[in-house]
Amino acid sequence: MNIVVLGAGMMGSAICIPLLDSGHTARLVGTPYDNEIIETLKRDQRHATLNYLFPKEIEVFYAEEIAHAMKDCKMVVFGVSSPGVFWGIEAIKPFLHESLLVCSITKGMHFDGKTLKPFPSIVQEQFLAAGLSNLFPAAIAGPCIAGELLRRVPTCVLLTGHDAKTLERIADCFKADYYHLIPCLDVIGVEVCAALKNAYAMGVAFPAGIHQKSGGSVGSLGMHNLEAALFAQSLREMQKIVTLLGGDANTVAGLAGSGDLDVTNNGGRTGRFGRLLGSGLTVAEARTEMKGATLECLEILAVFRSALGVYVDSGQIRYSDFPLLQHLIEVALEGKSVNIPFKFFSC
Amino acid sequence: MNIVVLGAGMMGSAICIPLLDSGHTARLVGTPYDNEIIETLKRDQRHATLNYLFPKEIEVFYAEEIAHAMKDCKMVVFGVSSPGVFWGIEAIKPFLHESLLVCSITKGMHFDGKTLKPFPSIVQEQFLAAGLSNLFPAAIAGPCIAGELLRRVPTCVLLTGHDAKTLERIADCFKADYYHLIPCLDVIGVEVCAALKNAYAMGVAFPAGIHQKSGGSVGSLGMHNLEAALFAQSLREMQKIVTLLGGDANTVAGLAGSGDLDVTNNGGRTGRFGRLLGSGLTVAEARTEMKGATLECLEILAVFRSALGVYVDSGQIRYSDFPLLQHLIEVALEGKSVNIPFKFFSC
Repeated sequence: MNIVVLGAGMMGSAICIPLLDSGHTARLVGTPYDNEIIETLKRDQRHATLNYLFPKEIEVFYAEEIAHAMKDCKMVVFGVSSPGVFWGIEAIKPFLHESLLVCSITKGMHFDGKTLKPFPSIVQEQFLAAGLSNLFPAAIAGPCIAGELLRRVPTCVLLTGHDAKTLERIADCFKADYYHLIPCLDVIGVEVCAALKNAYAMGVAFPAGIHQKSGGSVGSLGMHNLEAALFAQSLREMQKIVTLLGGDANTVAGLAGSGDLDVTNNGGRTGRFGRLLGSGLTVAEARTEMKGATLECLEILAVFRSALGVYVDSGQIRYSDFPLLQHLIEVALEGKSVNIPFKFFSC
Repeated sequence: MNIVVLGAGMMGSAICIPLLDSGHTARLVGTPYDNEIIETLKRDQRHATLNYLFPKEIEVFYAEEIAHAMKDCKMVVFGVSSPGVFWGIEAIKPFLHESLLVCSITKGMHFDGKTLKPFPSIVQEQFLAAGLSNLFPAAIAGPCIAGELLRRVPTCVLLTGHDAKTLERIADCFKADYYHLIPCLDVIGVEVCAALKNAYAMGVAFPAGIHQKSGGSVGSLGMHNLEAALFAQSLREMQKIVTLLGGDANTVAGLAGSGDLDVTNNGGRTGRFGRLLGSGLTVAEARTEMKGATLECLEILAVFRSALGVYVDSGQIRYSDFPLLQHLIEVALEGKSVNIPFKFFSC
């Protein structure tokens, strides 16, 4: 089966490996921002940001070559960053047909000034506008570090969408025995977790930075008590937002919530950023230290700052239900120092 | 206020510090097994297992001196190990009165062959049998490494019990600004998590051992994807047991579930034991390596092996709902090798 992956960033590129191992023809199409990555891949099969030698069976395309890539394509996987989703939709529009499978590993929520919406819903709206009512875009979420997927570490993720049959068809495309897609119909629950875990992982990482600043070393005694309290409070606040938006609060305990929060804190950029803030650096200093790496936590905190304000104004929630999220917004977007409001944490 | 702590192990001893910092007279009473610890404490204020110099204001007693310790005592804190609970109940029976506050930091569930019961319920039954109907024993659970509490690391834990007013009175006794007791009426939810987190933490630690065995080093790339999948599966299975026993599944996402699982994996003996098993050691070899440290995970797995069998036989649950717990039982109690059944994990 021919499968097109849009976006040659770390996750988009890494997902080609289980697709290849599942017996498919994987075609990686860069966005207009990925030209350098694609050039290096075409030249010597090396992926520059992943520092990884790509199998030669994976076909690689520049953005402008998309028509070639989409030939006889049965499934499109969105592997772009959140802002790239709208580029991706426009790029594939000429090639849409009713039997195309579409899934996304892009994470994020979109706020239109009134409602928070997950990406699968936004993509579906675009498909409806294009006259295609039988396309049910799905989304993948859960704990998956790209570098580990490349090394074929056993990985379990959720596949969410509104149509059970479509989810089954997509899950069937992934047959690599180390990559498990588990279908889940709670789109809101999964996508709220997928978006917010970046924001909260920043906070869960504060104590390691505080510990370091106070002269502590890495080891079994640190500030794990506080770190675990932040982890739990993060999940409890996520449950409230999932419930507010009509999802299933129980989803938060699973792969998309607890699993992805765990992995993001342990292995990701966001965790490192949080540790730097915890150690006393300002946001600007921490960003400099991280040499311009994309920080999804800042994007998602900005989205939720706007959204929370609107939901609070309409009386649907209270700020006091989200003491940690409020503090993360203060630290990341308003220049306040880390000062964890654990006195306001709930059970 | 005079407060008696029963049990001079690590947690019982550590809890004396926030009690002292809250302005109380803390009286630590050893069990008959704690005589050596008490002797050293009385002689030179040093706590042998904690390797910590005790403040001289904390009063220390041998088990047989309990009558002296209980004089004008307003609250008793059970800090014993699970089997020590029955000793503790007998020991304080002569001194019970209607206005005594009782709380427990002992974790575990008791299975009487028919029903799994949390310790607060068992203690309450004993009080009722002694003719005291107004005593509502409470229990503390959540992420708290003793060594960090001693160093006054900010710590949030749950205080659970059946009577809201009693919970408030007990929480009011803890005024140290780094130790927060958050009242929670879901006794079943909290105590199931408190018991099971030891069992599951053993499993969450397997991947670090597998990684080590295969030549991997500690760092940002490891088997975090698998570790996070196990973390999430643990919480999902805990939710099913909480629901089975009539508790609130949402509690699992909070301090007693996700928080305590996190801290137990990061800082505790159980995590180390799991890593040794993951690296290929047998249970006997791993126990030797750990020099006879108490392993609550083995006790609790034995309790749940019996209990699951009975609940499955009565048709209330299916083994297939608990693939991870079943595998942990196989590894810890039946000598099987680690072979994570992630294909059976649920969403």
